[in-house]
Amino acid sequence: MTETALVQPHSAPSVDRGGGLRAIEQRHARFDPRALTVALDGRYAPIRNRMRALLSEPEFAYRYGLDRHEDREQVLEWTRRLAQEGIGRIALPAPYGDGNVGAFVSALGILGHHDLSLFTKAGVQFGLFAGAIARLGTQKTYLAAAASLELPGAFAMTETGHGSNVRDLETTATYDAVTDELIIATPHDRARKDYIGNAAAHGRLAVVFARLMIGSEDHGVHAVLVPLRDRRGRVAPGVHITDAGEKEGLNGVDNGRIWFDDVRVPRTALLDALSRIDHEGRFVSEIESSNRRFFTMIGTLVGGRISVGAVSVSVAKSALTIAVRYAHCRRQFGPDPGRERLLIDYPAHQRRLLPKLAATYAYHFALDALVEDFASLTDDSQAIEIRAAGLKAFATWHALDTVQAAREATGGQGYLTVNRVASMRSDADVFTTYEGDNTVLAQLVTKSLLTDFSEQFSRSVLVAAGRYALRRIAALTETVPFVPARRPRNVEDPDWQLGLLRGRELHQIDALAARIKKRVDSGISAFDAFTEVQDHVLAVARSHVERIVYEAFVAGVAEVQDPATADVLQRLRALFGADRILADLGWFQEHGRLSAKTATAVRKSVGSLAAGLAAESLDLVNAFAIPESVLAAPIAISSNNDTRKTAS
Amino acid sequence: MTETALVQPHSAPSVDRGGGLRAIEQRHARFDPRALTVALDGRYAPIRNRMRALLSEPEFAYRYGLDRHEDREQVLEWTRRLAQEGIGRIALPAPYGDGNVGAFVSALGILGHHDLSLFTKAGVQFGLFAGAIARLGTQKTYLAAAASLELPGAFAMTETGHGSNVRDLETTATYDAVTDELIIATPHDRARKDYIGNAAAHGRLAVVFARLMIGSEDHGVHAVLVPLRDRRGRVAPGVHITDAGEKEGLNGVDNGRIWFDDVRVPRTALLDALSRIDHEGRFVSEIESSNRRFFTMIGTLVGGRISVGAVSVSVAKSALTIAVRYAHCRRQFGPDPGRERLLIDYPAHQRRLLPKLAATYAYHFALDALVEDFASLTDDSQAIEIRAAGLKAFATWHALDTVQAAREATGGQGYLTVNRVASMRSDADVFTTYEGDNTVLAQLVTKSLLTDFSEQFSRSVLVAAGRYALRRIAALTETVPFVPARRPRNVEDPDWQLGLLRGRELHQIDALAARIKKRVDSGISAFDAFTEVQDHVLAVARSHVERIVYEAFVAGVAEVQDPATADVLQRLRALFGADRILADLGWFQEHGRLSAKTATAVRKSVGSLAAGLAAESLDLVNAFAIPESVLAAPIAISSNNDTRKTAS
Repeated sequence: MTETALVQPHSAPSVDRGGGLRAIEQRHARFDPRALTVALDGRYAPIRNRMRALLSEPEFAYRYGLDRHEDREQVLEWTRRLAQEGIGRIALPAPYGDGNVGAFVSALGILGHHDLSLFTKAGVQFGLFAGAIARLGTQKTYLAAAASLELPGAFAMTETGHGSNVRDLETTATYDAVTDELIIATPHDRARKDYIGNAAAHGRLAVVFARLMIGSEDHGVHAVLVPLRDRRGRVAPGVHITDAGEKEGLNGVDNGRIWFDDVRVPRTALLDALSRIDHEGRFVSEIESSNRRFFTMIGTLVGGRISVGAVSVSVAKSALTIAVRYAHCRRQFGPDPGRERLLIDYPAHQRRLLPKLAATYAYHFALDALVEDFASLTDDSQAIEIRAAGLKAFATWHALDTVQAAREATGGQGYLTVNRVASMRSDADVFTTYEGDNTVLAQLVTKSLLTDFSEQFSRSVLVAAGRYALRRIAALTETVPFVPARRPRNVEDPDWQLGLLRGRELHQIDALAARIKKRVDSGISAFDAFTEVQDHVLAVARSHVERIVYEAFVAGVAEVQDPATADVLQRLRALFGADRILADLGWFQEHGRLSAKTATAVRKSVGSLAAGLAAESLDLVNAFAIPESVLAAPIAISSNNDTRKTAS
Repeated sequence: MTETALVQPHSAPSVDRGGGLRAIEQRHARFDPRALTVALDGRYAPIRNRMRALLSEPEFAYRYGLDRHEDREQVLEWTRRLAQEGIGRIALPAPYGDGNVGAFVSALGILGHHDLSLFTKAGVQFGLFAGAIARLGTQKTYLAAAASLELPGAFAMTETGHGSNVRDLETTATYDAVTDELIIATPHDRARKDYIGNAAAHGRLAVVFARLMIGSEDHGVHAVLVPLRDRRGRVAPGVHITDAGEKEGLNGVDNGRIWFDDVRVPRTALLDALSRIDHEGRFVSEIESSNRRFFTMIGTLVGGRISVGAVSVSVAKSALTIAVRYAHCRRQFGPDPGRERLLIDYPAHQRRLLPKLAATYAYHFALDALVEDFASLTDDSQAIEIRAAGLKAFATWHALDTVQAAREATGGQGYLTVNRVASMRSDADVFTTYEGDNTVLAQLVTKSLLTDFSEQFSRSVLVAAGRYALRRIAALTETVPFVPARRPRNVEDPDWQLGLLRGRELHQIDALAARIKKRVDSGISAFDAFTEVQDHVLAVARSHVERIVYEAFVAGVAEVQDPATADVLQRLRALFGADRILADLGWFQEHGRLSAKTATAVRKSVGSLAAGLAAESLDLVNAFAIPESVLAAPIAISSNNDTRKTAS
């Protein structure tokens, strides 16, 4: 018998420590996982519970071994079910919906526990397609049909030659004053729309991003509604679509490529909330600056990026739930054959999983705070855009690392499709490049820290350098502690950890500004100066995002009333902080922020916090409240662990 | 036009540097990629070239979108083709083969550029199955049929309950003196054979690892030949087989589970080169020690592990070739729309790919040296086993990291199956856990460094501690430099880099031995003492393997005559060393091995070496000499980059 029951009263250690391995002390009050779930769900508990219940219905059971086409039909069916439940209308403005953006993103987040093709399909249909019409157009009559999935739609932004560089898209929408129409054209092959979800099979209407040309003038990228197929699924004249083909994952999404061969649509097909062509064929816009207009135009992506971030947190939670439960069942090696030890009792296993669990809690709080701020916005906010970009990039990277750790921690079992970790890996892999390539987004974050997006990059760098130099002095004297070698402070203290993270960020921004200024002063263009120090730019983005995630975790814990819940969250927060400091131990020492002795203390702290939390890890993952049928992995469900015949 | 031709005379920078980004200087003599190929291929050039030619044949073209069953038949067909070409007999002893183990492993290595299911299937059939019979049995008549694939076979070692812990397998082979037979039995469900390649569909005979029971005595794990299916594919009586089902990757391999319900085989089915049952039913063995017998028994795995390591290097080469070629075609962003810049010119892109390229060269030399030493062995060598375990673990981790970097560096394109990076990712993912879980193997390495596998672990630790303390003193005074802050040496110097890597390893071994000794002295069992410091154990394994890989790289470069080839290899070696030091910068500073100033110099060195080598990276990947049809990815082949229709 090498199994133990998974369902246990709270966090009683399930552990036969054998030999003489000293038991981890249970120094802390036991927490109630249900109270922890309440703390995690926060104000979006109702929609989250509603989604959990919905996904637990039998029709959402997974089916394995489908080919690509069957998979797409299954996902379309599931998306229809979400539409029937009204999920598609949650974010849309009245009278088409509830105008509750926060609840919508939270609902999508729960989809991250289920099939990621479903999340992507729903996100394209209800988020990007309907969202673009709601945000950029006055043609709101389409919204009802979009929310009900009567009108499947596509969001045709990306081109083959321009993945991340939306500003330089080459598809054109040329105004023909004679017929009062717009002519949509793909000027050459690299300007085909690429990787467009809902394009290969189901989409009937597309929001197409194209350069608006009136006479000889290029008014920049605008969005135009262009029919793709009729009700019977026949592709519209002048439109050419091919299937993007088999992918590593997300094969339930019908990605396709689209070419437009002088397709004519009425002038009013231009989504015209921000800009329009008037009756005399003149370009009219609410927004003067073409730059600002561009960023408003692509603002639709912000919600998408936040959703991908939220879903990534859910993916990490699912993977950890499966791996941690397995680690509480599976025994391997031991002092002698009869006494093999549970995986969770091995320090290497704890170190592999627990820091990832702590970071998953951290990202949960950071994403929830972002969703709330995003939902309460009355107009665009650049600060939200930047947070969305940064959290999307680092939450998706975190999710991938976590799934990989879970895959390796579940061994060959984790490689089987039924155990779901491997397919999470394949599906979520594209998260690092879709909805904005992570490396590009990380650079956006740093640019905004330096300049507020001014086009006069070189001048503002000077300003930034000056400002940050001042802040740096303040930081060095007040916030950032240098710990003398013989008197290390408590390395788990939140102020101490935050001081280090803040100090690193300010130092790196300051040094970056100085490096760019030096180059600009010597006559190098701002673009080249920024590019030459790209590594430093990416390091700043990471430091910035880790700091805001840490702060969000601290703020989240501060709101928890129940002492036992707060206590375990404090330890997770401490582990997250210590682990992030450990990951950059070279930098902290190199820059005089940590003595060797304190560095050693941080290293030890990560090990001991991980060991302590390992004893409670079953409750910590169960608090994620993922429905069993959605989790589904046989290795995560105790009663399924011995399904096969027993030989006589 | 955003493409440039891929095929260029040597390493002329294909780069429109635009703006004012300072061009990377071409300070070095141009090398001839063909000369580099010769240096890489070394003594195994003939078999490598033969394999490249074979895999270039039209029948080895990839077919996408196959279901699992079609995929298996395709891979069986390919394996048959390898058998026809005599690949299966290369390693087998005369008269069944050429007895050339080095050539066989090198041939398998080239399969790493092609379908990894094919590598796995061929490895199971010709390596594990035929290899076990050749090594452990006197029943050599099976070898001809195994090498020709007339007799597809399985290597049934792993059990569900015992993935890595082979010594505790529970399947039994009980001798029945009355009928002079062995009775093979699966005592309970967790003892079923699991994940066995060739089991679900094609295998007819299996080498089954089971505890040999004679009377009441357990003689430990032995290998027995057990029929699985007859010629017509009907499963043998008493054998129960199920399909392991869909996996994340390697779906061309028919993995299955096997139960034995008192299956009777003749006494002579025991593979009897090492141990046998004599005519009077007594156990007789050449090897006295049951422990030594066990390690000889599982020695078959050594060749498998070396092959997986060699294949991992090939996978990394393929992924890098695709990503580097794409980076020389793909433009993104720029100072203005008309002047977008090639990806390879971005420092972040260089930092993402070039250290991985340098490490791939390093692992190439390390694996080739291991193959040579393995091939020249006349009997078992524990040192080879340990090197195989360590290189398997860290080469597979390196390959996965590299493929992931290539995946992200090729964006959405890299997610499409036709571009092959994503499926390499899915297929190679299991390399970290199959043929020995990496974490388990890494611990084996450290154990052997401490003890020479003595069962008297606690005593030998004392010995080891003493020995290493002495070596440490020598190292600190002679080899390991401490660089004063104001006079950093050349951080690219091989002696300096090697000194740091050796110093780290010795320091960590010494500290580990002391920590274990302290625990053992206080009465903790050796097993528990070792387990408590598991993190440290894994760090030692990494430090050890990185050091031997570095040394192999240095030795490999030393053999190269041509100055231009040697020069570029020296820079790759310097980048590998600097990057490995950078990755552990925290440790080196924490332990007084690097000053802050030198740490900064190392950081800068990685950036500048990567930038310099980026200009030559196209030749560096082309030197891997992967046939175009095997590479296949459209994004890696210039003429395929604009295949679709051009819109009018």
